[in-house]
Formats: sequence, structure tokens, C-alpha cells
Amino acid sequence: MSAGDLTHEAFQSRWVPAPPHCAPLPPTELPAGFRAGGFAAAVKDGDTRLDVGLLVCDGPACVSAARFCVSGALAAPVLLCEQECDLSGIAAVVANSGNANAATGETGLAQARLVQQAAATALGLPPNQVAVASTGVIGVPFPGERIAEMLRRSVAQLDHDAGDFAAAIKTTDMIDKHIALSVELPAGETVRLSAQCKGAGMISPRFATMLCFVQTDAAIDAETADLLLGVTVKRSFDRISVDGQLSTNDTVLLMCSGASGVAIEPESADERAFGEALDALLRELALRIVADGEGAKRVGRVYVSGGDRHAVERVARAVANSPLVKAALFGGDPNWGRIAQAVGAALPGSAPLSFDIAIEDIPVCADGAVIEFDQAALTAAAQRDEVEYAVKLPGAGAETEVFFSDLSYGYVKINAEYTT
Amino acid sequence: MSAGDLTHEAFQSRWVPAPPHCAPLPPTELPAGFRAGGFAAAVKDGDTRLDVGLLVCDGPACVSAARFCVSGALAAPVLLCEQECDLSGIAAVVANSGNANAATGETGLAQARLVQQAAATALGLPPNQVAVASTGVIGVPFPGERIAEMLRRSVAQLDHDAGDFAAAIKTTDMIDKHIALSVELPAGETVRLSAQCKGAGMISPRFATMLCFVQTDAAIDAETADLLLGVTVKRSFDRISVDGQLSTNDTVLLMCSGASGVAIEPESADERAFGEALDALLRELALRIVADGEGAKRVGRVYVSGGDRHAVERVARAVANSPLVKAALFGGDPNWGRIAQAVGAALPGSAPLSFDIAIEDIPVCADGAVIEFDQAALTAAAQRDEVEYAVKLPGAGAETEVFFSDLSYGYVKINAEYTT
Repeated sequence: MSAGDLTHEAFQSRWVPAPPHCAPLPPTELPAGFRAGGFAAAVKDGDTRLDVGLLVCDGPACVSAARFCVSGALAAPVLLCEQECDLSGIAAVVANSGNANAATGETGLAQARLVQQAAATALGLPPNQVAVASTGVIGVPFPGERIAEMLRRSVAQLDHDAGDFAAAIKTTDMIDKHIALSVELPAGETVRLSAQCKGAGMISPRFATMLCFVQTDAAIDAETADLLLGVTVKRSFDRISVDGQLSTNDTVLLMCSGASGVAIEPESADERAFGEALDALLRELALRIVADGEGAKRVGRVYVSGGDRHAVERVARAVANSPLVKAALFGGDPNWGRIAQAVGAALPGSAPLSFDIAIEDIPVCADGAVIEFDQAALTAAAQRDEVEYAVKLPGAGAETEVFFSDLSYGYVKINAEYTT
Repeated sequence: MSAGDLTHEAFQSRWVPAPPHCAPLPPTELPAGFRAGGFAAAVKDGDTRLDVGLLVCDGPACVSAARFCVSGALAAPVLLCEQECDLSGIAAVVANSGNANAATGETGLAQARLVQQAAATALGLPPNQVAVASTGVIGVPFPGERIAEMLRRSVAQLDHDAGDFAAAIKTTDMIDKHIALSVELPAGETVRLSAQCKGAGMISPRFATMLCFVQTDAAIDAETADLLLGVTVKRSFDRISVDGQLSTNDTVLLMCSGASGVAIEPESADERAFGEALDALLRELALRIVADGEGAKRVGRVYVSGGDRHAVERVARAVANSPLVKAALFGGDPNWGRIAQAVGAALPGSAPLSFDIAIEDIPVCADGAVIEFDQAALTAAAQRDEVEYAVKLPGAGAETEVFFSDLSYGYVKINAEYTT
């Protein structure tokens, strides 16, 4: 199947150029060495949607790496993975929507362990090679027994398509977040990459309220996998904001089956090429999360340069998390005064601060003060689907970026009218 | 006039009990020794509303104290007041809506100075005894000459009612924020207090995007005035959040004319009684700002205890600024999981954190985990006009509170569809 046949183009944002050595595959196609399924376990009473996903690595190797959020109210599945799993050798993952199993205490932890144990038994794996992940409402008792029962019955129904698995981890997601790629390595060999991601709303500083499962049939050692995942998560899920909220359940899991027979050696040209593909994949998924921010219409990117590492980070977060900036983005309003306000708020005590602001390359503010600009051009620029804001701080030191969603009626509706 | 005649009750929130020694006066009545007026200067081109206010202290004394926000993008009027005014001896203030004179650079500073100079000349005062304050859109050139011209023509039109002054400083405010009180001191003497306040939207951590002008006919020395204002601002405008945004223009100015002939001595019973009145006055105004948060329907109070000073502050701000908590408050949804999420996000790395949550005295979470509660009672509690959330952290150390508005369709509408 050629790329032209794919209704679902892999790279959709101008901020993520498609790497030339990557070709899209049908987006739910798993690499060799993986099987998956999605099942309806009524995690929420009476719900008939697919809400439990199971994904298994059949090897020959099962090498993995993981990243989690850092909340003080970490959900039971995150605590279980961090405390009891062999995170470099995960061979299966159970993920559910409908209940976050967060703020559920020791009972929640026991329920998560029950799910882990059921999957391990059914698959003939040690429990510490089974990861668990949950998303959904916080503070509701977790129906672990119901999920365990479903797993015992369903383990034979896995196949090489991740569509049901991807469906099972969705909550308020409207945009599909699964991609599969064929990656051509410099030596001419080919490996595959796929990912299924969930995230909308409560997408945060430092990380994102999301689940993301990534698979490859490349053979990668644990240290390299961990390094690659760490770097690419920092450049993707770590650089987005929907509503500035740090989640209790964020999980990113990379699994490498080695089934292609192609090994990615550390510090090789292959590793660089594979890393570029993983980077583009995760950035694209992160952008889709932002674009899918609950009720979102437009996506913003704030690029901050100058100052130092801490200053650019604070300013970028302040702009990206400002409900005033987000509401203006939604309205297609080039209200750069709100950017100035956010910059000032991020660096209290520095007044008068000499900063420059440009929107879509149109300079609107220099040395902290308004300058003349073409209002019609600015208004048109602010009404694009993707709007870029550049802030220059005094000094030459650092740079960073954050991608963010707007603040819409839809966001309020979803978050005021439903217990999510 | 008795309190019963007043259509505008001074204390409206259950969180601000009316001090027994305070009686409401007609809310725009100024204490002795003050005159004020409000004028239409078309600060925004073509606008015919009252948009410039002038308030003058005729003494016999003119003692003052002031507080400002700390943004790195401080507006020109704040920079001018901080850098060039005698803040303990302010005798007049010019305040405008329609333009914040922020992000306007040296030109904006010169325009603010022009306004200050015009008022000083018209009133026969040294410029450093004239404060200036602005609120409105950021990053638009400031029409100082137009305001100066208006002041030259209007200085004779001041009187003892602050209604037009209060109207002139309004922007998106829907709820009146002016109060006048008669304060009976322990020795039996009476002084008067009045205030005119503006604020809705962009109400922040640490302070509030607001202007507040307070007058008293008591005779108070500068050090005592500064102390009293500092303490009461910390307990009022410093404890509210509409959208977590730190403004460029926040100004609180207390002016004391001494015209009552009643002196408030430092560390006296009179000072305590006066301080209690000022405290209640500013807390009531702060609550009105929150209740008037752009489009707001309900007001929340989060009370955090335990932990230490830093932890309670971070948790209270995280809850009060969470758009998820705010949207749930708007929806009348007792979604305490979002409180748990905010607590965890405020204290990353502390998992599993043992915290308790109660909503309107109904415990919903103990030791970080859900407990059984009466869902119907909780739902009813979450639909009150004022909803109280209590969070208990491990340890006995500290306590704090933050008042916050909800996140409504109205907030999005106001901030997406208008350049404010």
C-alpha cells in the first residue's frame, strides 16, 4: 500500500515536517512481534464502549522504556509500574479508559495489581513484565475484578491491528491519535514504528495527561531505548499545554520486539535516523493532542528566545497557559497585549523589561513597547488554524517552544457539564 | 440615613461577616476632606462613557499608602507612581479606563507624566503628590494629551459623591464595587471609610488586576497607614483568583484626610477597630471582584491546612487556578477528583500523598483516597452560589485560603470576542 492510499496522512502540522526516510503505513498496523485488542468491560457502569485494551509483545526480544508524570497524587497504575515493574522489559500492557484509578488509595493499588496479575497469568508472563495504565474519572472505585475477568476471556482474541486497542484508550478524544510508519535506515534496511495515543484536556506543563504506547520491530538495547524515549518525550509531550493541568496518570511506553531482525546500534547513523522518526512521530501525536484540546479550534506555538533557560521556560509556559491568550486565540483576535501581560507575569520584578513580540513574523512590540504594524495583516494572521507567537527576551542565552490549544466554549461545555 | 434604607448592602458574602462596629453609608458618599468626579474623555476613540476619574484630598492632612503589582511588564502609571511619587503623601489621583498604558514604553511614560502634570497644575499641587492609574487594553498608544485637556477643564466640577469616579474606572465590571462605612471606634468617636474598586478578569496570584481607591477622614500617620494597607491587602486582593493572570496595572491606594479630627494612634484599640473595618471592606471588595469574574456564576473558596507555608500556598493556588476545577464549579459539579489532581500537581514528587478533601463540610477523600459520602448532599452543596473546598495536607503547620471564580461560557465570550 502506498502513502497515497492512506486516508489518514501521518504528518499534519506545519510544525512537524515529515522525515524523508519515513513512509506512512495504515495507521493501526502493528510492527512485527506485536498483537493487540480492545474490549468492552463496562469500566464505567453500563458503558458499552471498548474500554480495556491489551497489547502484547511476542519478541523475540521484549525491551522497553517508560516515562510517567510526577504528580503528588499519582494514580495507582503509575505507582504500580514505577514501584513493581521491570520497566526495561515490559512484554504486555493493559490500558483502560473510563476510570483513572487515581485517588483510590491502597484499594486502588490492589485493584491495579489484580488486573496486572490476571493479564500475566493469561499470557504466561511474570507480573512485573505487565504494565498497567488507566485514564478517566478520578476518585471513583476501580472495577479491577471486572477488567481481570474480561482479560481472562479475551487473551486469545488479539491480532496485528491496533484499532480496537486505540479505541479502548480514548476518552474525550475527537481526533485519531494512532500512526504507523515504515522507517528506512541509512544502510537500506527497514523497521516499523507505530503508536496509539490518548489525550485531550488536562494537558499540562512538563508533561501531558495522556497515554501513549509506541511499538517498533527494531532490536534496540534497553539503555538506547530509554535514551531515545527520554529525548523525544522532552521535545513532544513535554512541550504542550491544553489547560496547564498536570495529570495523575500520564504514561508513555516504548516497546521493542526485535522481530524485524534489524538492530539499532547505539550512536550509529541508524540510531539517528530511528530517533528522527520517533521524534517526528511523538511531536505529531503531541500536536494532535493540542489540536484536540477539549473543544479547540486553533493551535498556537509560542517560541521564546534570549534570556536564560529558566526565563524562556517560564515565559513560554505563562503564554501557553494564559486563559486570556487562549481565549484570544480561539477568537482569532491578535491581542498581543495579553502576550505582553503573560511575559511580565512570568518575570515579576524585572520591569521595565525590554522584550520583542511578533505574531506570524509580524513584529508588534519592540523593547517592551508597541510599534506600528499592519493591523489587517495581523488580523488575518491570527485567524489561521495554527498561529505562531515569537517572544524575544533581552540577552542571547536560550530558546524553547510550547504548543497550546485555545480556550473555547467547547472546553467549558465539556468540563462543566460532564464529570470527566 | 439608616442601614435599612440602603439598597446596596455593604457585606454580601458569608465569608465576610459585617463587623459590628461598622454601619453602611450610601455607597458613593465620600468621607470629609475628599472630592471626586468622573468625566468622558474618549480614552478609547469614539467612546462616550465616563472614563477618567479624578479624586482629590483636601486635607487637613494628606497621608497615603499604596501597593502595586510586580509584573515585569509594569504599566507606565505604575512605574511613574513607584519611581516619582511621594506615596505617603498623595493628595490626588487620576484614574482612567479604556487604556492600560502598558507596553507603551518611554512614550507611555511621558504621556502618564503629562496627565500627572496637568492635574498637578490644575490643583496647585506638586506633581509627585498626584498618583495616576490606568486600566484597559494593553499595547495601545495612550492619549495623555486628551486626558490632560479634560482635567484642565474639569477640575472645578468635583463634589463629595464618588459615583462618577467609580463609574469612570469600570471596564467589564458588572457588579458595583464601591462601599462607604461609618466606623465607630472603641472610645465612641466615629470615622468614615469609603472605597471605589474596579476589577474583573485577569485577577491573579499574589494580587489582582484591579484598581482600588480607599479614603478615610481619620487622621493616620504614614507608617500606620502603610502597615494597615499592607496587612489588609494580603488578606484580600492577594487571596483571589479569577483566571490566574498577573496584571500590569494593579494599584491600591489608601488616602487619609484627617478631616474628622479623629486620630488613630498606632497600636491602639482604635487602630485595631479601624483595621478590622478596613479588612472587612477590602475582603468584601475582593469577593465582589471574584463574584464578578468575567461571566462568573459561582464563587469558590479553597481553604488549605497542614503542610507548611509553601505547600498550602501552592495547593491553594493550584486549586483556585485550575480551569478544570473552575469549569466544574460553573457546572455545579462536585467533581472532587479535579481537586485531588490539582493538589497532586502542586506537590509533584510527593506521591503517594496523604491528603483529605471536604466540600461544604462533606468529607469525600481521606488519606488521598475516595471515601463513602452522600452523593445527593454533595451535589446539592456544589450548586450553591458560594462553594467551599477544604484540603488537609499531612502535618499541622500552616493554613491559607484563596477565593476564586468559575470558568464560564461568559468568560470565553468576553475574552474571545472582544479585545479587552
